[in-house]
Amino acid sequence: MKLEENEIFNSYFKNLSDRERAVFEGGITLGALFHQFVGAPVSLKNKELLEKSIEESMKNQPCVEDIKVEIVGDLKEDKYVSLDGNMLNVKLKIKVNNTIALLRLKYIKELNYPLMYVEEIL
Amino acid sequence: MKLEENEIFNSYFKNLSDRERAVFEGGITLGALFHQFVGAPVSLKNKELLEKSIEESMKNQPCVEDIKVEIVGDLKEDKYVSLDGNMLNVKLKIKVNNTIALLRLKYIKELNYPLMYVEEIL
Amino acid sequence: MKLEENEIFNSYFKNLSDRERAVFEGGITLGALFHQFVGAPVSLKNKELLEKSIEESMKNQPCVEDIKVEIVGDLKEDKYVSLDGNMLNVKLKIKVNNTIALLRLKYIKELNYPLMYVEEIL
Amino acid sequence: MKLEENEIFNSYFKNLSDRERAVFEGGITLGALFHQFVGAPVSLKNKELLEKSIEESMKNQPCVEDIKVEIVGDLKEDKYVSLDGNMLNVKLKIKVNNTIALLRLKYIKELNYPLMYVEEIL
Repeated sequence: MKLEENEIFNSYFKNLSDRERAVFEGGITLGALFHQFVGAPVSLKNKELLEKSIEESMKNQPCVEDIKVEIVGDLKEDKYVSLDGNMLNVKLKIKVNNTIALLRLKYIKELNYPLMYVEEIL
Repeated sequence: MKLEENEIFNSYFKNLSDRERAVFEGGITLGALFHQFVGAPVSLKNKELLEKSIEESMKNQPCVEDIKVEIVGDLKEDKYVSLDGNMLNVKLKIKVNNTIALLRLKYIKELNYPLMYVEEIL
Repeated sequence: MKLEENEIFNSYFKNLSDRERAVFEGGITLGALFHQFVGAPVSLKNKELLEKSIEESMKNQPCVEDIKVEIVGDLKEDKYVSLDGNMLNVKLKIKVNNTIALLRLKYIKELNYPLMYVEEIL
Repeated sequence: MKLEENEIFNSYFKNLSDRERAVFEGGITLGALFHQFVGAPVSLKNKELLEKSIEESMKNQPCVEDIKVEIVGDLKEDKYVSLDGNMLNVKLKIKVNNTIALLRLKYIKELNYPLMYVEEIL
């Protein structure tokens, strides 16, 4: 982005503290990741490439400092499934100025639900 | 959700203030909405139904109090397009206890970008 | 579409018989439907609206004469799930000149797989 | 897939000629690819990885012998866009017994539309 664009962009976030901005951007990225890639055909053959591709795609989003995507579940070599939200284990690091938020998308067995939450804000 | 599940669910958010939780859930919902429905075939024939369907789908998400989706752009009766992110004008109201966050997804001409941001936290 | 556009459009399909064109367009529509809407938040509250919205969205696609979408599964009023491909029961009618193809997307228990297939060509 | 599953699977396609089966599976794959990946964040940084990842993901689908995905358009290093259907240039090779179908997804300027069509059946 050009400098001028950056200023316009940031002007929309002046009403948020760094912590608030961090969890807002983190929420966007987790919601986007889930709903963009759920459904994608995956097997043992393309699991690693899909994980890496999701990571690099989401690194384009604002404030994403790092992201690690793991696709869990009993994948096979010769039969694919559609990527299910319950198969996603994501660790996301968002940086806003000096604030770091560590976020997570993970299947929670007690809830039978792939939960998005904030692990820690540093 | 059952009461016990609700407690487990909420235990993951104890480290966030109500404002932080509100913008986090708002971010998730905007990111989810965008990446779920972008690409959907839309024309004048199904515009209103798609808007309503996106609204009701996203109202399932945690803390979504209200949402208004408008698909803007020069749609036709007899030729469809794939829903583009730039065509989305969304007003989202998130409620966490007594805190209300008003969020927006809107195409910003100066950025040539469909921006997700927080308009106000009450 | 304008008349001239229609001619250009159809010129790309001269190498296909009506039967071939019908199953090609049917395949596109089933693949599109599945990968567009899988992941969408659904509960008993928005099930019918989502079904109707998928139908009307896909009716925009070329040669779609009729379509019936049913979301099956144990949905609840107060807890949503992400739409899973196994929950889709779709009947699709494609028309190319005088040829009608009836297609289906349905979960097949023996395959543990949501299968897309052609039921009949009339 | 196991042998028995394969037989059940193929039993659903006995009513199609090899040519019909080929264009049906080709249609599914093109429709799936488009609606799965449109919307994904892409810049010069992740363009190649996303192309490769789409290819390997779709190779899981039945009868896909080969596929080449090119993301066209004026991408930048430092500003991403959401993948638009008009940016997709796809060459798909489907094999059913001795029949090969070559399919294409490509933006057609005269139609202002990303067209899916069959180039040749061999």
